Amino acid sequence: MVRYKAIIAYDGTNFSGFQSQINGRTVQDEIEKTLSKIANQTIKINGSGRTDAGVHALGQVIDFAWPFEQSLEKLRFALDTQTPGDIAVKQVELVPDSFHSRYLAKEKTYEFRVDIGKPRSPFRRFYTSYYPYELDLEKIKRALPDFLGTHDFTSFCSGKSAVKNKTRTIYEADLVISESGDELLFTFRGDGFLYNMIRIIVGTLLKIGNGNIRHDAIPQIIAARDRDAAGPTAHPEGLYLKEVKYE
Amino acid sequence: MVRYKAIIAYDGTNFSGFQSQINGRTVQDEIEKTLSKIANQTIKINGSGRTDAGVHALGQVIDFAWPFEQSLEKLRFALDTQTPGDIAVKQVELVPDSFHSRYLAKEKTYEFRVDIGKPRSPFRRFYTSYYPYELDLEKIKRALPDFLGTHDFTSFCSGKSAVKNKTRTIYEADLVISESGDELLFTFRGDGFLYNMIRIIVGTLLKIGNGNIRHDAIPQIIAARDRDAAGPTAHPEGLYLKEVKYE
Repeated sequence: MVRYKAIIAYDGTNFSGFQSQINGRTVQDEIEKTLSKIANQTIKINGSGRTDAGVHALGQVIDFAWPFEQSLEKLRFALDTQTPGDIAVKQVELVPDSFHSRYLAKEKTYEFRVDIGKPRSPFRRFYTSYYPYELDLEKIKRALPDFLGTHDFTSFCSGKSAVKNKTRTIYEADLVISESGDELLFTFRGDGFLYNMIRIIVGTLLKIGNGNIRHDAIPQIIAARDRDAAGPTAHPEGLYLKEVKYE
Repeated sequence: MVRYKAIIAYDGTNFSGFQSQINGRTVQDEIEKTLSKIANQTIKINGSGRTDAGVHALGQVIDFAWPFEQSLEKLRFALDTQTPGDIAVKQVELVPDSFHSRYLAKEKTYEFRVDIGKPRSPFRRFYTSYYPYELDLEKIKRALPDFLGTHDFTSFCSGKSAVKNKTRTIYEADLVISESGDELLFTFRGDGFLYNMIRIIVGTLLKIGNGNIRHDAIPQIIAARDRDAAGPTAHPEGLYLKEVKYE
């Protein structure tokens, strides 16, 4: 047996999320079904982490044991073309047996896209979150650096999370406005993110831009360690897992 | 009664085309249904032209008679928000009673997008045509100017068309490659286009890029006045009606 790592992209619109579950179509199930068919035996995969229903990936990482060593491009092509059209397989590489997509992940980058155009673009309705209200982008830009560094992010974590240690380090928190002026692109890079963390951060930043939360309130919201202190959870359609890095 | 003109965009993926037909969901039916509900009486629309199933619009133009003059932005907002999410209403304006979207159109611009990335992007599968084969873009660029000017475009018209006069004038035929290098954007502007004309032009240009048709063959193909002389009809997903101009 050898172990392969693969970088995959998927359109999350028609998935109930990445991870296998009793009901619903999942990315993991589709990939395991295809790999098992190619290998003619049951293949199970690890992923770098879950993504929720509607959330997309540009660079999700998976790994799996494989019965024999083979051409990387042949395996990538077979997996890419035999999985449904909403999954793409960008790269396959051989990794040591000890590799694990989730346990060994050192850094993750997420993007969050917000459509602020009027009217809402019909082409981006599944690929951005729509925000039709007034936004002062300068206020959002002033608030972003307050997320940088190591903090207990309990206030920015879904109450449904069972994780105990809620301390995470954010290296990058950035906002770029599209040339056309009708789309916001947030980028967050850190050593890991809690359940719904990016979506709650963006939901809070949009409230800051709209004037409902003060632009200098982030330090107090973090210090509160209380989910109710932060803003709402932004919609999943805007969220993309962009990249996962390993040592 | 007054007459309004509206500029609309739509994602053609889940439509059987623009024009009403006996079976299938159409853009015209959805807009007429919404307008009739708002006006509380039957409203019928004209469109600048049909688009086929799967074809998109960034700037389709429609017009309709309306029982009373009212706020343009209120009407635009009502129509935009009450039509389904795959239709957007960008602009509404008052026009003379004599206005007609189809009869008075002077110039149309279409875009055609081709995904040439490896692998195919899952996010663009409904919004580009995919071409996975080798392409010499210089050959395509050399062929493009041969479409300019006034020609009988019978060779680039579907055999199903009932139109007799197949002479059209093309003012612009252009190709731009995306920054990422994985998408082609064709633009065609002319006084009008025949049924499937852009799709047959693009299908022929891709064959030229792939070396199956000579880059200098366009004049002969036009002169043949024979649909079989041109290349195949490219897929509808890459086609966008971008703009319609009036005097």
